[in-house]
Amino acid sequence: MAGKDPTSVREAPIGVFDSGLGGLTVVRRLTAAMGGEDILYLGDTARVPYGIRSLKTIRQYALEDAGFLLRFSPKLIVVACNTASAAAVRELEAACCPVEVVDVIRPSAAAAVAATDGPVGVIATEATIASNAYRNAITAIDGKREVISQACPLLVPIVEEGREDDDPIVLHVLGDYLRVLQRRRPGALILGCTHYPLLVGAISKLMGPAVKLIDSGQAAALEVQRRLKEADLLNPRATGGILRCYTTDNAARFARLSERFGGRSVDSVESVGTDELKAPAISTNL
Amino acid sequence: MAGKDPTSVREAPIGVFDSGLGGLTVVRRLTAAMGGEDILYLGDTARVPYGIRSLKTIRQYALEDAGFLLRFSPKLIVVACNTASAAAVRELEAACCPVEVVDVIRPSAAAAVAATDGPVGVIATEATIASNAYRNAITAIDGKREVISQACPLLVPIVEEGREDDDPIVLHVLGDYLRVLQRRRPGALILGCTHYPLLVGAISKLMGPAVKLIDSGQAAALEVQRRLKEADLLNPRATGGILRCYTTDNAARFARLSERFGGRSVDSVESVGTDELKAPAISTNL
Repeated sequence: MAGKDPTSVREAPIGVFDSGLGGLTVVRRLTAAMGGEDILYLGDTARVPYGIRSLKTIRQYALEDAGFLLRFSPKLIVVACNTASAAAVRELEAACCPVEVVDVIRPSAAAAVAATDGPVGVIATEATIASNAYRNAITAIDGKREVISQACPLLVPIVEEGREDDDPIVLHVLGDYLRVLQRRRPGALILGCTHYPLLVGAISKLMGPAVKLIDSGQAAALEVQRRLKEADLLNPRATGGILRCYTTDNAARFARLSERFGGRSVDSVESVGTDELKAPAISTNL
Repeated sequence: MAGKDPTSVREAPIGVFDSGLGGLTVVRRLTAAMGGEDILYLGDTARVPYGIRSLKTIRQYALEDAGFLLRFSPKLIVVACNTASAAAVRELEAACCPVEVVDVIRPSAAAAVAATDGPVGVIATEATIASNAYRNAITAIDGKREVISQACPLLVPIVEEGREDDDPIVLHVLGDYLRVLQRRRPGALILGCTHYPLLVGAISKLMGPAVKLIDSGQAAALEVQRRLKEADLLNPRATGGILRCYTTDNAARFARLSERFGGRSVDSVESVGTDELKAPAISTNL
């Protein structure tokens, strides 16, 4: 961020991208922590879900997404997609430098290790669990820490269907997924997917009050706040930040569902084609 | 197909495309009905699922998929994807002419109307139900026929997770979706999604023996057989047809899951980029 007027950088937006809508739960946490920040969100809805793509394809998409956000000179980029965080965080850091990149995996791994001396549970999509990204991030901090991982493939479609915490099917499916975790009683459980905070009531009920739930979006938001504060780049406004969204397909569906995920109104939703994402090479114009 | 040697056309493959793996249940039915036919299958796994895309995007993808298959001079094209059938069948017929196009919706609508004088039930994905494609196809045949539609968004992820017919969660979720249909007792129930035949045991158990289940892949396969026979284009071989697959992403995952859906081994799986699909304009070289 060298060479730029610090005031203008403070007023620059935070860029956030995700494969779809789920990342708006991270935006919700960013807004709660830093209500004055402008946020620019890209949801790559034309190519969602990333989790079933090959590693090479996920990296390519993530770099295109970040490249698009960089055109708006953000002061920091948040990778709100667990799959992209697991597959491409190093590549994103290299491509976006000097703009800092915050992912959703390392902050929640750190928060979980800090919250308990006991085992850490992780629930996430099949792709995220298979990547071992949470396990690796946790053992990078504490090599002896026990990690209990559970893939929960049906939870994203359940949330997108609009089912709520008290729906019998939600409780039945969650009960099935959480059986091993209930028995092994981790000290903390990471909700390793942006959709899961919408089921936090049911998860909390099934796991009981002794298990600390770590919302990966919340952990990422606190990490963003810490880094901006350290660099003296927080927006001086306390409230009134604007949320502008771009989506690569079906802006109408996005606009309809966005409030449920983001917990706030969206100031604008515009379409951008995936071909346009690819257009110029990544520019590091901050 | 004018101007071509009929023998070489008889030996030409049947082209089949789908947004992903599901269309292999249609291939299973084609193979059972016409074991000597070579089949060329394109699964657009880089852009699956189609059901959450906009109509414009679905049409573009479907035309690109068909355009790719046309390069291999197929004698007929099967649209094994319900979403693409609902969104783009007219456009596909126009673009592929003189190669005939068989979709998965109209044949099963006709089979259901023929199977009962009573109401017809339809279960399918949210996008297919919202498109009203089955309802329209049924009422085009019999304007007074009652149609009872039910979207079942969780069934595709349930099948892709590998859950079987006797899994308590499968029975619970299906019981929830089929409640209204159980009460209203249609004479026939269309399984309007290529994934649903893998749950036919549970659906049949819940609906009872009086409800005739119509497998949309089976209906499409019989329609293909009828048309090829009428045009004297059936392959004279009774067995030994080859299945070659192309997939736009993650050929390894495709190869791993294909046998479960297709009920047969796949002779080859090759990757093709979505950029390559777009390359030449659709050629009608038959």
